[in-house]
Amino acid sequence: MKRYLGIDIGASSFKYGVGDSKHGLQCFDTIRIKEKSLSAFQEIIAQILVHVQDQEISGIGIGSPGTLRMPEGKLVGVNPNLPFFVGLSPRELIPKGFDLPVYVDNDANLMALAEANSYNCSEAIGLTIGSGIGCGIVINGEIYHGAHGFASEAGHCIMIFDGEECSCGQRGCLEAYSSVEGIRRRLQRRGLPYHALELPELIALRAVKQELYKVIEEGENLLIRAVANLITLLDPQKVILGGGGMDLGLYDIKRINRLAPKYLPKAHSQAAICVLAGFGNRAGVLGAITLCERKSGSE
Amino acid sequence: MKRYLGIDIGASSFKYGVGDSKHGLQCFDTIRIKEKSLSAFQEIIAQILVHVQDQEISGIGIGSPGTLRMPEGKLVGVNPNLPFFVGLSPRELIPKGFDLPVYVDNDANLMALAEANSYNCSEAIGLTIGSGIGCGIVINGEIYHGAHGFASEAGHCIMIFDGEECSCGQRGCLEAYSSVEGIRRRLQRRGLPYHALELPELIALRAVKQELYKVIEEGENLLIRAVANLITLLDPQKVILGGGGMDLGLYDIKRINRLAPKYLPKAHSQAAICVLAGFGNRAGVLGAITLCERKSGSE
Repeated sequence: MKRYLGIDIGASSFKYGVGDSKHGLQCFDTIRIKEKSLSAFQEIIAQILVHVQDQEISGIGIGSPGTLRMPEGKLVGVNPNLPFFVGLSPRELIPKGFDLPVYVDNDANLMALAEANSYNCSEAIGLTIGSGIGCGIVINGEIYHGAHGFASEAGHCIMIFDGEECSCGQRGCLEAYSSVEGIRRRLQRRGLPYHALELPELIALRAVKQELYKVIEEGENLLIRAVANLITLLDPQKVILGGGGMDLGLYDIKRINRLAPKYLPKAHSQAAICVLAGFGNRAGVLGAITLCERKSGSE
Repeated sequence: MKRYLGIDIGASSFKYGVGDSKHGLQCFDTIRIKEKSLSAFQEIIAQILVHVQDQEISGIGIGSPGTLRMPEGKLVGVNPNLPFFVGLSPRELIPKGFDLPVYVDNDANLMALAEANSYNCSEAIGLTIGSGIGCGIVINGEIYHGAHGFASEAGHCIMIFDGEECSCGQRGCLEAYSSVEGIRRRLQRRGLPYHALELPELIALRAVKQELYKVIEEGENLLIRAVANLITLLDPQKVILGGGGMDLGLYDIKRINRLAPKYLPKAHSQAAICVLAGFGNRAGVLGAITLCERKSGSE
């Protein structure tokens, strides 16, 4: 089986690994981002290519935050994490003259692809609960991009009209309630002293602080309703929940599975089930590798 | 080009026609339903087959209301319009021994397929505004069914939590606000004397009755927000709005196109546009014929 290099560009580091989707990763490592600039990013990629030069790879997959216009794979619109990157493609990080195929996609899409593949689902939705809410939709075993590459922005579907302000400028988005930053902002607006705590402390403290508990519970309730609406609309085999929030136990998968069916049409109620993502912080790298396999298999 | 018989089972009549998606319908007619039973429905189909016996057809497509489990095409769950039909497939209406291929799908799915095809869209969402809200999702030029056939129930996505009661038993569904029956029920609950009026009268009267105007405007506002969420999630080329409500002018497509982009993420704002369905009450029959073409072409 061919092996690929997967690279996952995160907010504070590049993760990378070599392997295939069947056997997993033969290596996995992380390089911290010291400076957010094109040349610094190109330098990190050059380091990664040196690290893996002894391994036989058949291509590179890159996962990037932000909205990519497809099929070109160019970052568009407002990307607060990577402003210098807008209008470019992550492909441009790879040295000129590099002669293997390079595939790019959004990081949440790649998480969904890797997890759907491991759960053997051809129809699945992946949601990552972290600073924001990421979403990827897998249809017929492939990432669904929509007409322009902008699909699956579930975090910015409006759940409460004229609701809480979201970082995107809208009001009432799922992300404004159910993401970690959404929880912090709501704590801050309510004058509650917990918003600066690290996530594990926040989670630990909710058992004894009723007002903190309420804010997190509101986030979970909105997530449950969003999951129900996604199932109502897309009827997936599974909804796969991951990201740092789920990994640390911010929300309770059992409660989500108990309550989500209450909001579904009668025909749907037993049709879909939420599961926890299994790959943790390696999902992006594995998804990038799975993308290479799918793309090279179809060429 | 091969020609097919399309049959659209409605609440009060069977519509049918023979033709192909390129040249349209060579004939189109309607047979009223006198009795809702399997034998009465089989009798109507037998009449239709006599009517078209002189025409050379290569197969039959049938559009049915209700939720069809796929790929079997059996009606499942609660279907208040066709209770005798639950557990059966519309295929069973065709006489035994009939030796041409028969394809079935949900009526809103077929409307979406016919309209997406005519607008030359491979990615589209069709919404029908009538007694209920129908929805069909077209992805890669095909009807999207989800894992079990239950996808695209946009009418039962919950828009307002603990909102108005819907006929499905949930609260706050889009259908409870934006469908014609949803408008009637809200008028009735508010003690307003208009709920028994025919739709054209309701529409005419809103210009002079402020409280009626408000109820219809609320339906339009919720539809706009639902359309925005659909675009945020699925990034279609077009959202195609049809059904009796749109045909009669219940909602204003210009206002929908003006306001929906305000609820979209910045990258999306110029990416999708709502258009009016063009086939009126022939969309189901044309969709059934288009389904035959797609299915027989792929076999």
